[in-house]
Amino acid sequence: MRGILPFSVSEYTERLVRTQRLMHEAGVDVLLVSDPANMNYLSGYDGWSFYVPQVLVVIADEEHPLWIGRKQDANGARITTWFHADQIIPYPEKYVQSSDQHPMDFVADILSQIGQSKRRIGVELDAYYFSARSFEQLKRRMPNTCFKDTSLLVNRVRMIKSDQEIEYMRRAARIVEKAMRAGIHSIGSGVRGCDVAATISYAQFSGTPDYGGDYPAIVPLLPSGIKTSTPHLTWSDSHYQEGDAVILELAGCYKRYHSPMARTAVIGKASPKLQDLAEVVIEGLNTTLEAIRPGITCEEVEAVWSKVIEKRGYFKDSRIGYSVGLNYPPDWGEHTASIRKGDRTVLQPNMTFHLIPGVWLDHYGVELSETLRVTESGCEVLANFPRKLFQIPDPPLATMPVEESGA
Amino acid sequence: MRGILPFSVSEYTERLVRTQRLMHEAGVDVLLVSDPANMNYLSGYDGWSFYVPQVLVVIADEEHPLWIGRKQDANGARITTWFHADQIIPYPEKYVQSSDQHPMDFVADILSQIGQSKRRIGVELDAYYFSARSFEQLKRRMPNTCFKDTSLLVNRVRMIKSDQEIEYMRRAARIVEKAMRAGIHSIGSGVRGCDVAATISYAQFSGTPDYGGDYPAIVPLLPSGIKTSTPHLTWSDSHYQEGDAVILELAGCYKRYHSPMARTAVIGKASPKLQDLAEVVIEGLNTTLEAIRPGITCEEVEAVWSKVIEKRGYFKDSRIGYSVGLNYPPDWGEHTASIRKGDRTVLQPNMTFHLIPGVWLDHYGVELSETLRVTESGCEVLANFPRKLFQIPDPPLATMPVEESGA
Repeated sequence: MRGILPFSVSEYTERLVRTQRLMHEAGVDVLLVSDPANMNYLSGYDGWSFYVPQVLVVIADEEHPLWIGRKQDANGARITTWFHADQIIPYPEKYVQSSDQHPMDFVADILSQIGQSKRRIGVELDAYYFSARSFEQLKRRMPNTCFKDTSLLVNRVRMIKSDQEIEYMRRAARIVEKAMRAGIHSIGSGVRGCDVAATISYAQFSGTPDYGGDYPAIVPLLPSGIKTSTPHLTWSDSHYQEGDAVILELAGCYKRYHSPMARTAVIGKASPKLQDLAEVVIEGLNTTLEAIRPGITCEEVEAVWSKVIEKRGYFKDSRIGYSVGLNYPPDWGEHTASIRKGDRTVLQPNMTFHLIPGVWLDHYGVELSETLRVTESGCEVLANFPRKLFQIPDPPLATMPVEESGA
Repeated sequence: MRGILPFSVSEYTERLVRTQRLMHEAGVDVLLVSDPANMNYLSGYDGWSFYVPQVLVVIADEEHPLWIGRKQDANGARITTWFHADQIIPYPEKYVQSSDQHPMDFVADILSQIGQSKRRIGVELDAYYFSARSFEQLKRRMPNTCFKDTSLLVNRVRMIKSDQEIEYMRRAARIVEKAMRAGIHSIGSGVRGCDVAATISYAQFSGTPDYGGDYPAIVPLLPSGIKTSTPHLTWSDSHYQEGDAVILELAGCYKRYHSPMARTAVIGKASPKLQDLAEVVIEGLNTTLEAIRPGITCEEVEAVWSKVIEKRGYFKDSRIGYSVGLNYPPDWGEHTASIRKGDRTVLQPNMTFHLIPGVWLDHYGVELSETLRVTESGCEVLANFPRKLFQIPDPPLATMPVEESGA
């Protein structure tokens, strides 16, 4: 009944061993994994069921995790996980979105039944989909258990990618090139934002003839006009007008691995202010990419960027990038390393980042970004796409000279 | 700087007054709203920023809520909310995904500064994106505050829709008809699931010439073959084969309001078992729709369904529907009323439900669903789409006789 796994079973068991090592260091015997990306990373589980509570239970001295989730989703777990169906424990449907019963009561009872309730249990306190209520229920049902916050423990294991993971991110990069090209080509005066979003989404899901796309953790972010002064607005059905700037931030996704990319376009001629900001962002991005290599820290990378833009009279107080890879909605970032002041994470080969030095001012903004892999000596930019402010109409991208990728 | 609001300011203020009435009944003076749908419902705020902590603060005796969110998103709040920019309080970027600072520290400090920390504060303990850590930080920073669980308080206010909300759901129904038609038409032997998903997504976002689509809270759920034994798997890039069944569960979305719909298709001839199950589900769905009217309870509606299918030798232990409307990922359900045993919610005019009596057996399953509005005397099915098991190739849907909508 099992489907085709995206990784070998030995790759999953290695991930588990590395997780158990960090559990030992953190002083926990049991880990409750709620973050859907962490669940997928350790088990292969892949379903849109994270809207109800579900956990993967990793036990320090056990070779297989336990999946506990909704009964309706148990067949999905049997199809997508690497371990035996005995490890899949469904909770009855009556627990779903009920006022008098909570799925975490069931989880607590299982932990007690298998003799784990007196051990030290790590919980991902700041993970998506592990609600405050979930934690309250666990504590109430297991009053003698010592809980420890192990937020980001598995995320840290995820930071350095395997060759297979890198290959999936490269495929995602092929997909994002297609989607970005389709998006920029479809923009024009009189066009509706929703139709541009539709074109992008088609390309994201359809992927390439060799490998189809998966759904990215974030829908296309597509602010235009005054909305380019802020990064997280989506689209509307109003029509673009001559002079509108449009920011496109989107990802290709392959087997849940992301390669995000952002570009900025303007319909007609860019104002001198927008042109100037775009030049600064491009220069900053290029200079920062050249500086990335193993051994440098995140804050040193950020300092390269700051120096370039401050010389040109700009200032940015938010991070310019973050670790990226496997994920589910609502975020493709891994929440571990951020490229910003104060982050002393040392870059290592096969770490992957979304380097996104966006600048948003009061009435406009510019985003240009790349997803990169830290190599043995520098960095590999995964996608190959012109770094420029696109002025629409623009010569067709397909016939543009292909720029060298990498830095 | 404000964009066009989807509702009048008076509709937002009425929602606020109804919320404040429930706050009074619940014994809280201040409500921290984290659920992005509840934030949007009360403030208009609409951005993909729920991957970082953000709250709307509703105070019992104040006419305007406060929006507290990330600095980068403050311009988005100024553009999309109905109240004055003074009510928008950004937290500095250093709080974002940091190991030593948490956005809820900032929220707690603001509550103290505006003199609210000694009052009774309601928190949505079981809302998406209100993490266990968020609650821990609040309690630590405000040790003398009395917190109460007010999960679903605003969701309950959302249950009965206004005429404008119903109009938006009707538009979403036009969109889901287009998307379902496009999806079913694109299925065939040798076709990849990812290309069907792409076609559906194009139709969802592009919408109609009169109104463009918004992103639904759930991506198209598109299990095929053995994966139809479980509801929440998405798609892959493998090719459909003759004999494969494909379940399509998807929504149209307009200004964040959803009209979901599910249908099942089979490539070639359906097996007698699949055909039988589909007939039972259709009969059950039709009979249940005929029973829906104001005054009946959710569990009475479920009993109508159970009686039909049990007579035919089937059994279903999960709910057959739930309240639906405004939402954000990861769920379009409202988490209030469920159509199942034990739910005594009394149906009232302008409540809206996704009636989804799916049946998943060990190796196959069938889903057929409708989104409906409770009327003064019965119910209005929002979309108009044949209720049948689609056998592919199928006569083109566009030329099919249009069935009467409603029950």
